[in-house]
Amino acid sequence: MKRRILVIGIGAGNPDYVTIQAVDALNRVNVFFIPDKGIEKDGLARVRREICERFIRDQSYRTVAFEVPRRRPAAEDYGTAVADWHDAVEGVYQQLLMEELEEDECGAFLVWGDPTLYDSTLRILDRLQAKGGFELEYDVIPGITSIQALAARHKVTLNRIGQSIAITTGRKLAEGFPNNADSVVVMLDGEGAFAGLDGDLDIWWGAYVGTPDEILVSGKLREVVGDIERIHKQAREQNGWIMDTYLLKQPD
Amino acid sequence: MKRRILVIGIGAGNPDYVTIQAVDALNRVNVFFIPDKGIEKDGLARVRREICERFIRDQSYRTVAFEVPRRRPAAEDYGTAVADWHDAVEGVYQQLLMEELEEDECGAFLVWGDPTLYDSTLRILDRLQAKGGFELEYDVIPGITSIQALAARHKVTLNRIGQSIAITTGRKLAEGFPNNADSVVVMLDGEGAFAGLDGDLDIWWGAYVGTPDEILVSGKLREVVGDIERIHKQAREQNGWIMDTYLLKQPD
Repeated sequence: MKRRILVIGIGAGNPDYVTIQAVDALNRVNVFFIPDKGIEKDGLARVRREICERFIRDQSYRTVAFEVPRRRPAAEDYGTAVADWHDAVEGVYQQLLMEELEEDECGAFLVWGDPTLYDSTLRILDRLQAKGGFELEYDVIPGITSIQALAARHKVTLNRIGQSIAITTGRKLAEGFPNNADSVVVMLDGEGAFAGLDGDLDIWWGAYVGTPDEILVSGKLREVVGDIERIHKQAREQNGWIMDTYLLKQPD
Repeated sequence: MKRRILVIGIGAGNPDYVTIQAVDALNRVNVFFIPDKGIEKDGLARVRREICERFIRDQSYRTVAFEVPRRRPAAEDYGTAVADWHDAVEGVYQQLLMEELEEDECGAFLVWGDPTLYDSTLRILDRLQAKGGFELEYDVIPGITSIQALAARHKVTLNRIGQSIAITTGRKLAEGFPNNADSVVVMLDGEGAFAGLDGDLDIWWGAYVGTPDEILVSGKLREVVGDIERIHKQAREQNGWIMDTYLLKQPD
């Protein structure tokens, strides 16, 4: 038994971020596996539909919705919680590939941003491949990340001249500013971890970047931190969800 | 006086990495500013030509070649060398914008990968804008970086679960492995700085990624370091140039 899968990065927010390679890939797919609406916010589901409608020329594909297992609230051990969750998702994926896809067909997962950055799809396919029982072939199509969208919209270079960049999560940032870091990009920060940092840092913050709801704020952290917190709260209440990313740089 | 510029990320290596947004941008450009062949390797110049020919529908644009000032060999002070070089490049850009572009036209710089990652174009336009003397409006179009191309071709996630990623240069890596770093992506390493590192690291290395000449090697650093050094040397001799990138991860 053999299964073919494409893991397609569809970019972050703006449907125009889709690459020519992704458009070609979309047009080779017979079955799209789409996570249930619970996990995907309305605004994102709209962009996903727009991408499929705009770029797929042959409409003979089908979509299979699937329920994504819930991750239990990370208690003390974040790693274990994620590992348990991966086990559950692996089972779901295996069932999808076995029961919803034929041997001569091509299935696809569409991933926001880039499949190689803070996304679990590759890890799960890798585990299924190692587990054996069937032959699994998959390819990965890169996509524009929210980091790149943020930097492009702010027209700011991520690195300072010759310096490094750290990409991290709100959770890690809350443990402390990365050692020796010069530029830091923070993703997946639900808690506003930037508020506890040195006010002398420069920040470039963005929410819903690339979409019509985009909000951008930049400046000295101490001068804009209050604005960002207020805007973040308001926007989340108004839209029911928020996805934000930010870049911090040591002052010149 | 007013000048309009698009800074367009054209992706890294594979013309199919171009985004829909970049294709639309390419078709709005009247004048492309193209660096002289000295700085651009033959293989890259070929990809650039292919991108313009494939994706620009209206052929009424013109191209203006310009000589990129040489950066003097970085002696003790890398920062100063770069700053001097930026001064020289700023002068060249100003002349291009003033003399080769009309007020109602749109000019463009095409940038390999993404204009916000280890590229100077935005910094120079920013300086020209601050300097005044004319009004400068520019927009930035993100592009797929060599980091994303590398990860996609190796089918590997950049981060380990919940962990950070450092992006750095060969020069910085030679000073020491980034503190507390879990995954490290190294760009611009002419000297094979990986050879001096802990052999227990996992490495995913790639040269000319996304092009027909692509070479990929991965494994435990101690087991593949000799292969990579040999392949790197051979490929550079054979092609006259090399562009490589690699990902290092702490073992699981």
